[in-house]
Amino acid sequence: MISVLIIGNGNVAHHLHKAFTKAVDIHSTKISSRKVSNIPDAMVTIIAVTDDAIAAVSSNIPNRFVVHTSGSVHINALENTGSKGVFYPLQTFSKERDVSFDEIPLCLEATNHKDMQLLEALANAIGKNVVSINSEQRKCLHVAAVFVNNFTNHLFKIGNDLCDEFNVPFEILTPLIRETVLKIETLAPEKAQTGPALRNDTKTIEKHLHLLNKQQQEVYTILTKSIQNGH
Amino acid sequence: MISVLIIGNGNVAHHLHKAFTKAVDIHSTKISSRKVSNIPDAMVTIIAVTDDAIAAVSSNIPNRFVVHTSGSVHINALENTGSKGVFYPLQTFSKERDVSFDEIPLCLEATNHKDMQLLEALANAIGKNVVSINSEQRKCLHVAAVFVNNFTNHLFKIGNDLCDEFNVPFEILTPLIRETVLKIETLAPEKAQTGPALRNDTKTIEKHLHLLNKQQQEVYTILTKSIQNGH
Repeated sequence: MISVLIIGNGNVAHHLHKAFTKAVDIHSTKISSRKVSNIPDAMVTIIAVTDDAIAAVSSNIPNRFVVHTSGSVHINALENTGSKGVFYPLQTFSKERDVSFDEIPLCLEATNHKDMQLLEALANAIGKNVVSINSEQRKCLHVAAVFVNNFTNHLFKIGNDLCDEFNVPFEILTPLIRETVLKIETLAPEKAQTGPALRNDTKTIEKHLHLLNKQQQEVYTILTKSIQNGH
Repeated sequence: MISVLIIGNGNVAHHLHKAFTKAVDIHSTKISSRKVSNIPDAMVTIIAVTDDAIAAVSSNIPNRFVVHTSGSVHINALENTGSKGVFYPLQTFSKERDVSFDEIPLCLEATNHKDMQLLEALANAIGKNVVSINSEQRKCLHVAAVFVNNFTNHLFKIGNDLCDEFNVPFEILTPLIRETVLKIETLAPEKAQTGPALRNDTKTIEKHLHLLNKQQQEVYTILTKSIQNGH
């Protein structure tokens, strides 16, 4: 039996606690990050708070082993006096959607082998995709995630805005979006690239720019340039 | 029985001919766009050539009804003397991957009801997602497709480059990429947006910029600005 204490009020705290509660041989307790006095003891204390609050919240925790869940914060930002670690689930969480930890990469970091074993046991209790990642690699994954998730979603929004403007249902683009993603599971993104930017088809690029507003033109121009420089 | 003549040497000509050959009540013939003398007759002639060649190739075709397959070219760019139309399959085609026309939106345009009925019969013989789209709407779909397919793929490439640089397997990002796409099938992209740009988290944005090369920084900065202006 591993005892876990989760401190936090956000989506990550909510989904982690839910998953640990269902897992066998884990005893999970969750408390708000606003009431960090009388902290219950636990073998692993997971603080799932905003990046800026990690130092302050961790400094108040007397428990033996404290880990944070952030992709962009170094392990040494933790200010507890005991052992330190990271338990970073690489996924986009929202209240509206249920998540299955089965597929989510759980990126772990610890300062010694025994702590790592404990984190691995915890991760394996809720997931199947457990990886050991150091702070430098995690920083890289976090920025890469911004490109493939946040920025990609924004491109979908621009596509949606254009469809609304020209009275075309955005759903027409769904099969293309699905294929865009399926393709890179068998072909490296570099090999999967197509389109006017890659072909240096200036006539089509000009036509496209005429249809866009200023902000969309800026995005179009920079990405076209980046495709052309990168190939 | 509908007779179809496909003129072209590329991926679209190849995949269309393959699909029509398998369909019932369709007789498909395919010829190269380089030999446009002695053109066989057909009820529908589909020219699947590069945008720039559409005018010249179509001007040599005496057949009754000629359609092109381009997303970005107006129906009136056709220079045949007979009827004109468009048969635009909205998908990314590559030689490496088989395509199923079942899901691909087939975007049709014609100048009269009878021609449209003929195109619809043809489209329904190979696909299930048949839509009537005028030239303005098609132009919009084409530029939207560049955002959601070409540019998205390029963001995947940047993610891949970053993983290579920091020695992290790119496959760790696959579940996140899948969720990014699944999310917008139930949530509008605008509602699905998350990340440091949306939160105006300048500290994380600064950290990310430090990890990137100049080209990646430009893309990061423009997309961050575009997310912040758009919400």
